[in-house]
Order: sequence, then C-alpha cells, then structure tokens
Amino acid sequence: MKPVPHRTVGRLTLYWRNLGEFSAEGKTHVYSHFLAAKSHVTPAQVRRDLMVLGYSGTPARGYDVLRLREHIEVFLFPATEQKAAIAGVGNIGRALLKYFIGRRPTLRIAASFETNPEKYDRMFQGCPCYSIEKADSVIREFGISVGIIAVPDKEAQFVADTFVGAGVRGFLNFARTPLHVPPDVYVEDIDLAMSMDKVAYFARQSERSDRQLLSVVHKESNS
Amino acid sequence: MKPVPHRTVGRLTLYWRNLGEFSAEGKTHVYSHFLAAKSHVTPAQVRRDLMVLGYSGTPARGYDVLRLREHIEVFLFPATEQKAAIAGVGNIGRALLKYFIGRRPTLRIAASFETNPEKYDRMFQGCPCYSIEKADSVIREFGISVGIIAVPDKEAQFVADTFVGAGVRGFLNFARTPLHVPPDVYVEDIDLAMSMDKVAYFARQSERSDRQLLSVVHKESNS
Repeated sequence: MKPVPHRTVGRLTLYWRNLGEFSAEGKTHVYSHFLAAKSHVTPAQVRRDLMVLGYSGTPARGYDVLRLREHIEVFLFPATEQKAAIAGVGNIGRALLKYFIGRRPTLRIAASFETNPEKYDRMFQGCPCYSIEKADSVIREFGISVGIIAVPDKEAQFVADTFVGAGVRGFLNFARTPLHVPPDVYVEDIDLAMSMDKVAYFARQSERSDRQLLSVVHKESNS
Repeated sequence: MKPVPHRTVGRLTLYWRNLGEFSAEGKTHVYSHFLAAKSHVTPAQVRRDLMVLGYSGTPARGYDVLRLREHIEVFLFPATEQKAAIAGVGNIGRALLKYFIGRRPTLRIAASFETNPEKYDRMFQGCPCYSIEKADSVIREFGISVGIIAVPDKEAQFVADTFVGAGVRGFLNFARTPLHVPPDVYVEDIDLAMSMDKVAYFARQSERSDRQLLSVVHKESNS
C-alpha cells in the first residue's frame, strides 16, 4: 500500500468529525461540496482524499454519512486499544491528560513520566506517573507506541531517545526543540510560543492596515 | 511593504529563539548553514527569510548573532505592549495562562472570559476573568488585539464574532471548528485531537512495517 500523506490523514480526521455532526443533525446523505465547505477545503480535495479509502458516493445523493464515517473509522482507528505515554506532568501535561481522557476509545494514555520525585509514584487524572528512569521498562511492558512530550526543552531529546528505544513510533511534541528521531518515527510538533508570536504579528499588521485605511478615508472625506 | 508569508514569520521566531541559544553558548557569529541545521530548514531558506529583514551577514564570518537577533526582534515584536484575551478558563485555558505568563514582555494576557458564573469575577494566574457578556467593553477598553479561543467547539464562533466586533485581529484557536472571520483577521488553529489522531495513525503504520520487516528477516533466516 502506498503511504498516505500526513495532511490527508489530518483531513480525514476532520471529515470524520464533521460527518459525526451531520449525522447528529439528522442528515443521512451529504454531497462532497457540502462536506468540503464545512471542512474548509475544496470538493476536489475531499474526493481525492476519500480515494485512499476506496470509497465513492452515489452521484445523485452524495455520500452516505454513516457509511462514509465508518469507512474513515476503519482506516484511521485501530481495532484494538493503542497506548500512549506522556512525559512531563506540568501545566500543559496535566491539561493534556484531562483533554484526552476518553476522547478516543481506541487510544489511552496509559502512563506518565516525571523527573520530579514529588510528582512520580502517584496518579494524575487516573493515569499512573512513574520516574522517567522506569520509562524503558514501563513502555515495553505496556506496549506503548505513542509519546507526548511536555517536558522542558532541554530534556526533550533525551526523552525522545528513551521512548524510541523502548518502542514508541510517534510523538506529539510540545517542546520547542526539533527532535532527532529515526525516519520511520513520526513527529507532530506543536509550538505554542511560535503560534502565539505569529498571531500577535499578524494581528498588529491587520491593525496597521485598519489605521492606514482609516487615514485614507479621513483624507478623502476632507478633500 | 509586501505582506510577509505566514510561514516566514513562523521561521523567523524559530531563528530568533535559536540565535538566543547560540548567544547563550557564547557564539558571536554564525553561518547560515549552521542556523539552518539547528532550525531544520535549508540554508537557502534561511537566507531568503532573512531578506525580509533587509539584513545580510558578512560572507567571511557569517551573521553577527546578537545583531541579527535584534533585527528579528524589531521585525517580530512590537515597541509597546500588545494585549491578548483568552476565552475559556478550563484545563487548556488555565494551562495556557500559566504557559504564556512572562514569556514575552511585549505580549500580555490582560483578560479572560467565561460563561460559567463560578469562574468569572475572580482571578486566574493573576489574570482577571470576566463574564463573556462583558467581552465587548473589556476588549475595547484594554485595546486587546489578540484572542485565544479555548471554549467548547459550539461556542467558538460566537466568541470569535464578539472578539472581532470589539477589535481583535488575530486568534489562536483551540476549538475544533473552523472560524469564519473577515479576511484581514488571522487565525492559527491548534487542533490537539487531530494532531493526536495523526500521531497515533503513523505510529501504527510504523509498527506495522517493523513487524513486516521482522517477518521478512525471520523468513530469510529460516530459509
């Protein structure tokens, strides 16, 4: 099977979610342009993405909402529970633990790790927290394949190395360090500070053009 | 001035951070290929991005670390404090409040908003929390230009409309709803659930190829 592009997988999760909303609204069928509009992509993109599932709608009525959603589910989610571990139970780590509890029945955060003795050997949100020194054995024992990195930047690479060594094959990385991992290990970086800097920058640019526009309008109304 | 692409701004924040690390390590000059490697981009990309600043290094010694960092700072960060507001002080909202405190002297989360009466009219991490009904007047009074959306999905569009109406020009959006905003308003979406689904998917694909490889090795060693 040809590898599926990263962005396609991202969009499939979006379609899956939006189909769920259509279903909740009582819709049984949906046209690609409708699913596309709700997902902020083009109808051609929707049709291309759905080709990886080998699923096509009937032109007259569009896609069967529930059947398409099932197809995406089979593609995206595992048949048996997949396990994740989180490194670092600071503010972001604990918020993520709460956020992901029960969000996907097929993915469970089974363990967390800390370097701080005041934090490990106890539970956070029903998830056991271990010393980072036990990471290798716990990850192997639990069969954990997904890692969430929410430790300080300078500890991130060490955690990634330990997790990869124990069998982790994908990371959600909140540290602001690009992780060096083998090519078959997937990393999704979430850089909150960078995102915030971008938003702040473009908000200022937008305010600036508002002011320029206002001054033009002002000059014109005075001329 | 030509508008600067969104990704260029993102990379400039990355260079800025990495130059700070070089400086902390005692480096005074750095070649573009060195900055590129640390930032996980190509040297040509670094040189192209820095052109928007009108700054170029001396070929013999590379870039002056501190001067280049200053140039990026002047470009990226405002001369006077910019203010942000956060909608929703649930787990993610409170973690973000803590995360962003003092991170940038030029950006301050000046207010937060809630629909829950048990949460508003009090402080979170030193930030006042108001009823969402007061959002319009508080945002105008404080001159807030940046919004962080950390409310449930179904409230996100209402919050965005209110914030935009009051003068917000950029959003960091944690809700899983694509926001409809005017074209001059910037939105950076952070979709934690989608990111996690992608990581989980690619981790499984990687495990699968590991197993296939193992089975090939096993067959070969048996043949």
